[in-house]
Amino acid sequence: ADAQLLDTLVANGFITEAQANSMKGSSSDKDPVYVTPKRSDTKKLVIRGRAQFQFGYVSPSSDVDGAPTNDYSTFEIRRLRIGTQGSLYQNLKFDFRMNLLPEGANLDTGTMVYTGIDGVDIGVGKTKPVIGMEEATSSTDIITIERSYAANFFAAEKNVGMWAEGEAGPIALVAGIFNGENENDNVIDSDLDSHFQYNLRAGFDASDYLPEDMSAGIFFDTIQNQDNDSDEAYQFEQSYSLGAEFEVGAFGIMGNLLWGTLTEEEADVTGVVVMPWFYVTPKLQIVGQYDYLDSNTSDTIGVQSRYLGRAAIDDAKGDSDADEGDKWQSWYLGANYYISGNNLKVMGGVAYSTLENEGTDQVEAVTVYGALRMRF
Amino acid sequence: ADAQLLDTLVANGFITEAQANSMKGSSSDKDPVYVTPKRSDTKKLVIRGRAQFQFGYVSPSSDVDGAPTNDYSTFEIRRLRIGTQGSLYQNLKFDFRMNLLPEGANLDTGTMVYTGIDGVDIGVGKTKPVIGMEEATSSTDIITIERSYAANFFAAEKNVGMWAEGEAGPIALVAGIFNGENENDNVIDSDLDSHFQYNLRAGFDASDYLPEDMSAGIFFDTIQNQDNDSDEAYQFEQSYSLGAEFEVGAFGIMGNLLWGTLTEEEADVTGVVVMPWFYVTPKLQIVGQYDYLDSNTSDTIGVQSRYLGRAAIDDAKGDSDADEGDKWQSWYLGANYYISGNNLKVMGGVAYSTLENEGTDQVEAVTVYGALRMRF
Amino acid sequence: ADAQLLDTLVANGFITEAQANSMKGSSSDKDPVYVTPKRSDTKKLVIRGRAQFQFGYVSPSSDVDGAPTNDYSTFEIRRLRIGTQGSLYQNLKFDFRMNLLPEGANLDTGTMVYTGIDGVDIGVGKTKPVIGMEEATSSTDIITIERSYAANFFAAEKNVGMWAEGEAGPIALVAGIFNGENENDNVIDSDLDSHFQYNLRAGFDASDYLPEDMSAGIFFDTIQNQDNDSDEAYQFEQSYSLGAEFEVGAFGIMGNLLWGTLTEEEADVTGVVVMPWFYVTPKLQIVGQYDYLDSNTSDTIGVQSRYLGRAAIDDAKGDSDADEGDKWQSWYLGANYYISGNNLKVMGGVAYSTLENEGTDQVEAVTVYGALRMRF
Repeated sequence: ADAQLLDTLVANGFITEAQANSMKGSSSDKDPVYVTPKRSDTKKLVIRGRAQFQFGYVSPSSDVDGAPTNDYSTFEIRRLRIGTQGSLYQNLKFDFRMNLLPEGANLDTGTMVYTGIDGVDIGVGKTKPVIGMEEATSSTDIITIERSYAANFFAAEKNVGMWAEGEAGPIALVAGIFNGENENDNVIDSDLDSHFQYNLRAGFDASDYLPEDMSAGIFFDTIQNQDNDSDEAYQFEQSYSLGAEFEVGAFGIMGNLLWGTLTEEEADVTGVVVMPWFYVTPKLQIVGQYDYLDSNTSDTIGVQSRYLGRAAIDDAKGDSDADEGDKWQSWYLGANYYISGNNLKVMGGVAYSTLENEGTDQVEAVTVYGALRMRF
Repeated sequence: ADAQLLDTLVANGFITEAQANSMKGSSSDKDPVYVTPKRSDTKKLVIRGRAQFQFGYVSPSSDVDGAPTNDYSTFEIRRLRIGTQGSLYQNLKFDFRMNLLPEGANLDTGTMVYTGIDGVDIGVGKTKPVIGMEEATSSTDIITIERSYAANFFAAEKNVGMWAEGEAGPIALVAGIFNGENENDNVIDSDLDSHFQYNLRAGFDASDYLPEDMSAGIFFDTIQNQDNDSDEAYQFEQSYSLGAEFEVGAFGIMGNLLWGTLTEEEADVTGVVVMPWFYVTPKLQIVGQYDYLDSNTSDTIGVQSRYLGRAAIDDAKGDSDADEGDKWQSWYLGANYYISGNNLKVMGGVAYSTLENEGTDQVEAVTVYGALRMRF
Repeated sequence: ADAQLLDTLVANGFITEAQANSMKGSSSDKDPVYVTPKRSDTKKLVIRGRAQFQFGYVSPSSDVDGAPTNDYSTFEIRRLRIGTQGSLYQNLKFDFRMNLLPEGANLDTGTMVYTGIDGVDIGVGKTKPVIGMEEATSSTDIITIERSYAANFFAAEKNVGMWAEGEAGPIALVAGIFNGENENDNVIDSDLDSHFQYNLRAGFDASDYLPEDMSAGIFFDTIQNQDNDSDEAYQFEQSYSLGAEFEVGAFGIMGNLLWGTLTEEEADVTGVVVMPWFYVTPKLQIVGQYDYLDSNTSDTIGVQSRYLGRAAIDDAKGDSDADEGDKWQSWYLGANYYISGNNLKVMGGVAYSTLENEGTDQVEAVTVYGALRMRF
């Protein structure tokens, strides 16, 4: 409207034509070029991203023959994602995100969600079937540098599917169906019995029934993945998670029980995570985590892949099986400094971890972590 | 110009300094950050993309020993592309698009086009040598969920090259030269005889000579690909397409004849596509397609790769050659609902297909398709 | 502030309410959608990219048995990169760039830099440890179509690390530590002795001490890469570069001496580059380059990989070792036409190159180059 306004002001005799022209001229000279979406149906378009730089050092030890005795350290780009999201019309949102790493790029998540039905959103595309409290938390928001090994062991890979999610008062429900084969592959392989995995989630937010400085919630998730075979996208036949979170003032605690049956070995596996935290100041948070994973079958559990797994796996190239067991325990203590919430933060932590097999110690390790995380 | 205008108005005594300052202040407080191109030479920059989600189910049958008897179904991201296009100066346009899929990312097309010569555009980069009516139509605009097998069989992969295109009244011409080896590889391999493929296209738009509610066009394409060898980017020595399209009111029909000689086997292959359509309402379109492919040499033709090919190829891992033949026929009937033209649409269709070899039935199949397609 | 300004003008009685409304209405009707960053912490966000299209033809000859006798030519996308850069707050800059090529996509560079300390910037992420005058020059700014073989031979791959860079008057210093293993892999492999490479750089800009139409600088770089093994990211145990640049009026010259010891073979290698240039007009530049590489060990030096390497390597599949030697020399003469500085330019050049081994001619070749380079 600038040019129009200037013309109006000239017409009304409040500024001179020369004044108007000088302003028009200088304006168009400096007019910046803004990036736009290509088509006018697009009502909103943002660019987003996250970058996570990470240091890790692990010092393992073991009595097992040939087991890891070497320390391992690295500095790496843990995650780097660039994405674009927006809406076509009022009610159709899209969100496409790319993994962009030195070793290659691919589609991390790519979804379209219809939000036009009251109380229910319908989505389609590649996303994560979610099981467990930590998996339900974005990697930009987790308060330990790595999720627990229990969380990782029960986690499902992102895959292509469809889902619906709805809220009714304090209750939230999600139901999804995903390709059950070929993790991170777009396409179901042509088996006799192509199959899907089903993800059901229910949450209850008790915060409205509690005093003002308290919040709490209870969450149940399951993935049903029957008729699985060797091309499985998810290693469990079925898995379950029951979790709760409670916050009062600067203190909070999360507990998570996970259990399920592996398709191969038919082992029953149980995981437990307990994670208390405390805000020393609004920007400084202390976090502890107890991480427990137990299998009723020996050699079905490994070690946290980042970073103990790299050291242990390396030596397993020899003849050591120190990285296989039936009982994992890990204790983590860390601190997070929130320079600007989850948009920019520095994290540090140390973990002591053990793996046993049939009651025998396999490997124990101390891991030291440091992280710089940003998003835009 | 806002600040300048405000200052002028103050100088001219029409608003007070306080009014001006309040407007300046509130403006800069809320100023959103807009994404811009890095350099001021860039006169335009847009972000664009397309996402295509697709369901397929195929039920094949055959009398051939060991041939497919299994049904196959999938839900997949058929295409997901993100791109940026713009112009340096008035006459130099660039357009870079990325394939972004769960299985990886790469450059789909990347072109620079000089539009400063009257009537002729000169381009350079990676794009598609085009042969055939359906290949000339973007995947966002095709009216069947998959292009015909005839179209796919004659299609050339995108490759790096140079081209010129011009228009003179109702006539349009395109001439291009492309790397003839190593499809989707950037670089010509160092053979004794590196070679190129040549693409020539001519179109005649008869619409100006027809009554107002009619439009029609005739199109001729060829790819000349002599001196080919085993690293060929395109499987034909030479190929030709003659096509026509005619629309009157809500009704339209496309016909396409394709023929050429394969480099290996030296088989002569002929394809025919006939595709009528009808708009029941401005948003609902019915489409039929007859798809025919014939070779004078047995075992040189296969089946539509999506989705029959996945089922048939799978069993061909055994000893069946039910997916090789010399005569393919397919009948497709579909409906498209245009929520917002080609920016957002839902498509459904069903196809009945047969493959014969030397007069014997190899495989017959029913395929059911569903698709959701958007672009921004 | 437009709407506010209009309201103010109405309130002050200088335009009518109808005039104001008409301007408001027409403005909001046409409001374009601008792309924005997702989060308000992001103070700046730009989209950038470069595209480099390139033609090469090489005609080699040799007396060595089985050595290349074939000419080789190609047209290719030399580089295509798309990136996004911006700042979180005043002092934290990020810059993420993707290689986007027909053969795939990955992270080219991805950095975060803190600029809040006076005189020193601290960076983290994937970038290039820099050694040599040409490696210190971006591929958008180099004045030969390819960097010299001496520069390429001493160059280090981009890798993940941390660095600090500072300036004090005419002196600039950079110190960096990078992963020393697995070039272009994010992660250090779990060897007994994971190791790092160290990059130190110092520059002295003498321009302030010279007459106005002169500029000059001297630059020293080193990479220290001890404890290297077979997974090395960089082939030198240690390497050094001493370079100088001098410009007077339209004339300039660069000289660079490089030396170092290879980890394998423990060969001592020396490189020399001399590159004069002259601006015939402000847009037309003539460039010459002498490129010399010498090793004290036979068979440790090859040939410029683009494009002689492709021809020579091809025939080396036979039993020729014409592409191995101990002494490389190359003479390049080229011209660059700057349509818009380094934002858009056309380059052409021709090189005569020889490789010797123990005083015997291995291969000699003429290479012709052409290039179109743009950035946005």
